[in-house]
Amino acid sequence: MFESDRDALIALNLAGMVGHVLFRRLRARAGSTRAIFALPEEGLSSVEGLRAKAVEGLTAPDLPDRVAREKEEAARLGLRIITLADADYPSLLASIFDPPLVLYLRGELLPADGLAVALVGSRRASYYGEKQARRLASSLAHAGFTVVSGLARGIDAASHEGALDADGRTIAVLGCGLSQVYPPEHEALARRVVEHGAVLSEHPVGFPVLAENFPRRNRIVSGLALGVVVVEAGRASGALITARWAAEQGREVFAVPGPVDRPGFAGCHRLIKDGAKLVENVEDILAELGPLARSVPTPQGEIVQDPRLLALSEGEQRVLSVLDSEARSVDEVIGRAGLPTSAVSAVLFSLELKHLVVQLAGKRFVRS
Amino acid sequence: MFESDRDALIALNLAGMVGHVLFRRLRARAGSTRAIFALPEEGLSSVEGLRAKAVEGLTAPDLPDRVAREKEEAARLGLRIITLADADYPSLLASIFDPPLVLYLRGELLPADGLAVALVGSRRASYYGEKQARRLASSLAHAGFTVVSGLARGIDAASHEGALDADGRTIAVLGCGLSQVYPPEHEALARRVVEHGAVLSEHPVGFPVLAENFPRRNRIVSGLALGVVVVEAGRASGALITARWAAEQGREVFAVPGPVDRPGFAGCHRLIKDGAKLVENVEDILAELGPLARSVPTPQGEIVQDPRLLALSEGEQRVLSVLDSEARSVDEVIGRAGLPTSAVSAVLFSLELKHLVVQLAGKRFVRS
Repeated sequence: MFESDRDALIALNLAGMVGHVLFRRLRARAGSTRAIFALPEEGLSSVEGLRAKAVEGLTAPDLPDRVAREKEEAARLGLRIITLADADYPSLLASIFDPPLVLYLRGELLPADGLAVALVGSRRASYYGEKQARRLASSLAHAGFTVVSGLARGIDAASHEGALDADGRTIAVLGCGLSQVYPPEHEALARRVVEHGAVLSEHPVGFPVLAENFPRRNRIVSGLALGVVVVEAGRASGALITARWAAEQGREVFAVPGPVDRPGFAGCHRLIKDGAKLVENVEDILAELGPLARSVPTPQGEIVQDPRLLALSEGEQRVLSVLDSEARSVDEVIGRAGLPTSAVSAVLFSLELKHLVVQLAGKRFVRS
Repeated sequence: MFESDRDALIALNLAGMVGHVLFRRLRARAGSTRAIFALPEEGLSSVEGLRAKAVEGLTAPDLPDRVAREKEEAARLGLRIITLADADYPSLLASIFDPPLVLYLRGELLPADGLAVALVGSRRASYYGEKQARRLASSLAHAGFTVVSGLARGIDAASHEGALDADGRTIAVLGCGLSQVYPPEHEALARRVVEHGAVLSEHPVGFPVLAENFPRRNRIVSGLALGVVVVEAGRASGALITARWAAEQGREVFAVPGPVDRPGFAGCHRLIKDGAKLVENVEDILAELGPLARSVPTPQGEIVQDPRLLALSEGEQRVLSVLDSEARSVDEVIGRAGLPTSAVSAVLFSLELKHLVVQLAGKRFVRS
């Protein structure tokens, strides 16, 4: 019925009602992904948990046509489709309990996006909260991190904007199909995100905006990241769902505190009481993620010894190349790197932030 | 030379340069407190750590006269002197590593003051910080806690005021002798504190205001309390010294978070990162102190099973007396207690705050 695992995954996703758990059972039964569609109806019905409605969807005679039309529509809109069967599926996301079978993507994912942090929070955020989101996102971008969020109003938008302001990379995960942007007033922002990262969704192109899908969307936000920072969240904020996903996925959970007399921060304070790391500055995030960041595999499956190196500017690479375990003064670094003094100071600071360089007493530097 | 241990302690404190460690060595050498002054000069000199200057002070021929004059001066000013040899020395304070040998006191200490929490923070506090200090102090007072602080400007003053506003008890620990009030603009506040608790100091009556004594003063603030709440503190605030004393004394450390872009809260956030409990409401404090509060001995040395009972109002005692392990509705409680509906609701809430009563489903209540 389908010639490739890739098309079979698009079909499974399009038919709906099959998440990763059922997919694994179906594949185990069929022997391979594409063989799922060769299973007789009785074979499908006997798979534990697969409802009659799902069996109907998987055996619908028009499914191959719909897959073909979906691929055409995606191509027409300039979308890429990445399935779990593809080498460039994000490996951090692939490692969660129930990764999306398919990602629709506008823009591109780079290997360096494996070094990502999600920033999430309230849609009705305070000035203070949005300011912190913007500041942290900019600092994370400076330190070479990709900022993941959900393109929602408030904290999400401020986070994407902060990363963009710093010429960094950012990824927006939507809860609807990519034929539209939600919320609609963020169309211009979405275009900027696409130019410096990607807007993506697990839903078929024309999938409508359904609020009930947003909580599950959040598992992709956290799944793409090494850690989740909740910037501002009341007691019932959806950002807390993202934090819970993060904890279940073994990702770090961070929260920014705020005034205790504003209900908008009660969720953040709850997280901190429950063990989330309190964040004042980007250093608080880097201090936790340093060790994690070291062992992230690239989407190609190779383990990069230190993926922070992937995100280095030319100046950073130059300065790093003249440093080793011997302590050197700023002047020595300037002489060896052949860069202007001001550039070297800025670059050394940025390398310190990335924990690639350590400053010793007397303003001397070594590689960490 | 002195007829009582009490006078000997006043003399040791007046002569100066002898803290609790040296006092213990001297007493061990002499056999009793008052016998310290019967030791020959060579005996004193051979005590490890006792400097020549201290030996000189202890053997000064005018010391007995000075003790007599000090007692007269204290009496003239309406001060009480409580020494470590007295039964009414606060037992929580007596249990720290280096309790003051002598406390000078204006006002009075009650057994219920063993149930105390210290609130400390920045002298140059924000409106937000002072508001939280006042609110927490009022809530602690409502819950039957005595509020301890240092009478300083800012958070200290707001804490005393919050306790007083709620008709609660409060204790101010000064870093100078009680012939004066420091800072002078808090004279009126000090008078109110005296009426609802005590102003106290370890220093002789006429001891001057010396900033260098303030850090050690803070050990008394924490030593009198089951826990210390740092309400607002920058990175170098003296309140952090109080928090460190508290940790060393085995007392709970709490901190109120605030905006991360104001340096005035960096100290609080540091404490939370290091393990202090984040405080939004009085419940956060009670949740930690509940178990501790149960085992506080009274200053008389007897272990009160639940000292929260000491601080109960008449209404609270009445309501508590009609509750047991059987769940009762508000109406039943009203009927049994013979109190007006509004009073019973308020009293039940206050008993819940004190963790003496638990509310079950359907607004029914049992003793905890």
